[in-house]
Amino acid sequence: MKVAVLGFGTVGYGVYEMLKNADGLEPGSVLVRPGKDDAEFKVTSISEITEDPDIWAVAEVMGGTNPAYEFVSAALRAGKHVVTSNKALVAAYGPELEKIADEKGVAFLFSAACGGAVPFLHNIALAVESDKILSLGGILNGTTNYMLDAMQSRFMTYADALADAQALGYAEADPTADVSGMDALRKIMLACAVAYNMLPDSGLCCEGIESITAEDVNHIQAGGYTCRLVTSGGLSESGQLYAYIEPVLFPANAPECSVLKNFNMAKYIGENSGQIVFMGQGAGRWPTASAVVRDLNDILHGKRFMMRPDCERVAADNSLCEHKYYVRLPEELADALPAEKTDVYDGIARVITKEIPVQAMHDFAKESRKDGSSVFFAAIGE
Amino acid sequence: MKVAVLGFGTVGYGVYEMLKNADGLEPGSVLVRPGKDDAEFKVTSISEITEDPDIWAVAEVMGGTNPAYEFVSAALRAGKHVVTSNKALVAAYGPELEKIADEKGVAFLFSAACGGAVPFLHNIALAVESDKILSLGGILNGTTNYMLDAMQSRFMTYADALADAQALGYAEADPTADVSGMDALRKIMLACAVAYNMLPDSGLCCEGIESITAEDVNHIQAGGYTCRLVTSGGLSESGQLYAYIEPVLFPANAPECSVLKNFNMAKYIGENSGQIVFMGQGAGRWPTASAVVRDLNDILHGKRFMMRPDCERVAADNSLCEHKYYVRLPEELADALPAEKTDVYDGIARVITKEIPVQAMHDFAKESRKDGSSVFFAAIGE
Repeated sequence: MKVAVLGFGTVGYGVYEMLKNADGLEPGSVLVRPGKDDAEFKVTSISEITEDPDIWAVAEVMGGTNPAYEFVSAALRAGKHVVTSNKALVAAYGPELEKIADEKGVAFLFSAACGGAVPFLHNIALAVESDKILSLGGILNGTTNYMLDAMQSRFMTYADALADAQALGYAEADPTADVSGMDALRKIMLACAVAYNMLPDSGLCCEGIESITAEDVNHIQAGGYTCRLVTSGGLSESGQLYAYIEPVLFPANAPECSVLKNFNMAKYIGENSGQIVFMGQGAGRWPTASAVVRDLNDILHGKRFMMRPDCERVAADNSLCEHKYYVRLPEELADALPAEKTDVYDGIARVITKEIPVQAMHDFAKESRKDGSSVFFAAIGE
Repeated sequence: MKVAVLGFGTVGYGVYEMLKNADGLEPGSVLVRPGKDDAEFKVTSISEITEDPDIWAVAEVMGGTNPAYEFVSAALRAGKHVVTSNKALVAAYGPELEKIADEKGVAFLFSAACGGAVPFLHNIALAVESDKILSLGGILNGTTNYMLDAMQSRFMTYADALADAQALGYAEADPTADVSGMDALRKIMLACAVAYNMLPDSGLCCEGIESITAEDVNHIQAGGYTCRLVTSGGLSESGQLYAYIEPVLFPANAPECSVLKNFNMAKYIGENSGQIVFMGQGAGRWPTASAVVRDLNDILHGKRFMMRPDCERVAADNSLCEHKYYVRLPEELADALPAEKTDVYDGIARVITKEIPVQAMHDFAKESRKDGSSVFFAAIGE
């Protein structure tokens, strides 16, 4: 079956090459920007793909929401199956695209958009048909994991860890989407949509790694902990969806501590299956391309959807989840937190809080930073 | 779709209950032993299932090779899809059963036979269509992992760890299949069949945990290592299949160290995907039932096979894989091993060997034990 590819960057090239060797699949034309069509198989207009009856499916790996949305809509309307690695696209327009796919009876799959080679969404989609997903999440951003690992294993400063990640191509020139937590938060939005048929698109709590310092790392390690950036989603007891991202401190022996460099770890807890954990490469040409091609094979076997056409957008409610937190902040702000333990040195307080709601912790940090105060916080994991 | 269940033990009950709540599936009749048919839905003859046109698929969870083989063959011949959790059945008769399934155009899936809830075979089967699996394996027996963890985390003796596992229902009264390594070895046979279309049924090297002592654990921990029982399979550079099981020592921070209690960890390395790791519950009513029901959903989506009908039985060749080993043995035998380091105390030698072939190490231990010598060995992992 012929598969057209939208985009010929790192992942697009990988998909094109893998299609040459995949059973039952072959590469069709590749959409590139005008002027970049330096080979027979490259085309510059989406209509050359949507109007080609030989094209069975389209792999969208160009990134960004526009024109990806227009192109993917057009492909679906033309009756082509679509597979994408584009988390921004699915987080923004997933329900609309799934509705078109459903009307046309074609597939819309996006495994590669969450976890790269880690087959997280694929397995959630299968599990959810017979099991209840109690919660899900994990380490879903390789760039920040690489940086945190560099700070903790090689004692680099934040700035050096970022520069190192950029030099290796793991971080972009503007690293905001990664270090702010936004990239991984989009992935948990997709995972929630697949697991709960609800896409949380407001009320999300987003704390990245921008506040951690080498001094914080010293204190965390002295306490026997390892810091990771972790996304969490699930249903609270009253059935409200929660979804957030924040740094988490893990005791030695937690599986999260063994997630090194730019690796990802994703997990879900099924009512029947118990906890299922997945680890692997969350990005990169071949890992991401392998997830795209796996989805195409899944379509060959008859798989048609990950999201459902009636997937609803909802506001997340993070006021019902509670943890203890480790918080570093100016001494004069510390009294506002319900503390289990407080150490003060040189005007800086380090507090272990009692259990407090996720929403309250994120709100407190945001409020405190308004006057320029430096605050780092991390949940205390199990 | 109606699913008949063969066997109504721990897993059978779980499958029956899960089918009541699974989308698109419902429980049909359940095959039990004569005299045990104390309810309307229980039947005692396989023909009541094979001749029932309402039965769409059969879930075989009775265990053992006979009469499971006769019953599964009959179900496939009658045009019913079959899902099984029975690793002994698939290791012994997988290729024959797949041939019947292929002729009849029905599915034969066995995810639950390897890793319980851990979706290992399912993901290998999907990956292998577009990627090359370089190697696979992991911690595939929860009973022995529970015992090794009890010996290392709670400093129990082997006998106490076994008694504890038996009291909790993790080990059977006769624990031989687990502690000898045979149970996990059957699982790697299945994984190789799915990944390589070759079922290794001879030439296998099988070392379990029967030789480890509390004294060995002391020495292993003093060296900073953790011991796990690990199965390995893959293709050597010359294309020969290797498959074996043996204890392995891991340095702190290896993901294997975080596999506690009766959990499983399975992994494969794909040429494109890189290393993909799976962790979860390898046994138990609900985890195993969840894998059986996942396979049934997979059939609903159109999936038809894990093994191919032309899967060949081959002899494994373990002479081409080499590692360093940690070996504890009587002093007088130590000279026979190519040593990197040897410590002798009170007539007992503890040797770190140079890299030696897996086959040679297993042969040496077997030979040494013939005269009653006590030998423990473990590969040194990375």
